[in-house]
Amino acid sequence: MKILVIGGTGTLGKAVVREFAGDHEVITAGKTQGDFQVDITDENSVKTLFQRTGKLDAIITTTGSLHFGPLTEMTAEQFNIGLQDKLLGQVRIALIGQAFLNDGGSITLTSGIIADEPIRQGVNATTVNAAVEGFVRGASIELPRGMRINAVSPTVVEESLAGYGPFFPGFEAAPAARVAKAYRRSVEGAQNGRIYKVW
Amino acid sequence: MKILVIGGTGTLGKAVVREFAGDHEVITAGKTQGDFQVDITDENSVKTLFQRTGKLDAIITTTGSLHFGPLTEMTAEQFNIGLQDKLLGQVRIALIGQAFLNDGGSITLTSGIIADEPIRQGVNATTVNAAVEGFVRGASIELPRGMRINAVSPTVVEESLAGYGPFFPGFEAAPAARVAKAYRRSVEGAQNGRIYKVW
Repeated sequence: MKILVIGGTGTLGKAVVREFAGDHEVITAGKTQGDFQVDITDENSVKTLFQRTGKLDAIITTTGSLHFGPLTEMTAEQFNIGLQDKLLGQVRIALIGQAFLNDGGSITLTSGIIADEPIRQGVNATTVNAAVEGFVRGASIELPRGMRINAVSPTVVEESLAGYGPFFPGFEAAPAARVAKAYRRSVEGAQNGRIYKVW
Repeated sequence: MKILVIGGTGTLGKAVVREFAGDHEVITAGKTQGDFQVDITDENSVKTLFQRTGKLDAIITTTGSLHFGPLTEMTAEQFNIGLQDKLLGQVRIALIGQAFLNDGGSITLTSGIIADEPIRQGVNATTVNAAVEGFVRGASIELPRGMRINAVSPTVVEESLAGYGPFFPGFEAAPAARVAKAYRRSVEGAQNGRIYKVW
């Protein structure tokens, strides 16, 4: 399969690339690194990316920014950061990317454990991750040509504990390599509209 | 209690106002009707609304626009309509409104059955409604001063069947008056972070 991993140069993305690299043709895209550069908040940038990659069998996204901060001080403008980046960024990739998928191809997005298990200062993340999962449920019943869409919901990744650990008291971390397996379940499996929780 | 119903002039909003009017002081706000006019997509408009209402015991929103259309033709720009209106509009009301709530006050937002039960052309609605529920989960653990936040998830409302019925094949409708009771459970009850499903 020809697989595009957007965010393939991040902590989780690198593990996903390693998971597939032995068996598949993997193309990576990132903000500043990877085979191609892309700004997922920019319509033309995403269109250009797919015109360059050409037809694909799978699209994976492991990217997207969120706003973290106390609810009592949060503004709608700050909240919109996550809506425009991790949410609408991934949605844009799916909306544009569907036309570049071969029949039976798949899209796999990334949500996160905070969708179900809120943490302090994480209301934007809970909202956005829940929204990504809603998008997957909604899109899964409309995709034509045997195409599928799923999401992976990782717990905090072991490799990120140094930076994010204090925000996740008592959460069990998972190695990025273990989370990466869920993307393979999505891509090589036959399910549609699933949220693969790795936690 | 002094209760503000934003969207209190719509089909569902009117029923909510009727539910509370006998026992409480109810203030309504709408785009063009009601005691006050407000544009929920406009930061200053929402701030002005709360400066005019003054301190409240409960904030209820029964408003917000979405984009309906086929997934295969949807653009990110169209998708953003629901993100900016029904999602960020309600979030903005909660973020600004929290400072105008008395201790122990409540916020009740509106999601919808499509969060869990997708329909054709409804991917934006599924996403936005799921996001609203995520926001409630996230915000509920951070609100200070005994404040609470919940959402009501209505099925299609009987009074709207003439317009929306064909989009909801086989869905059981509920009278707006029955849905309105869930808002009372939220406002007068003691629960926090709950999604009251009326379906």
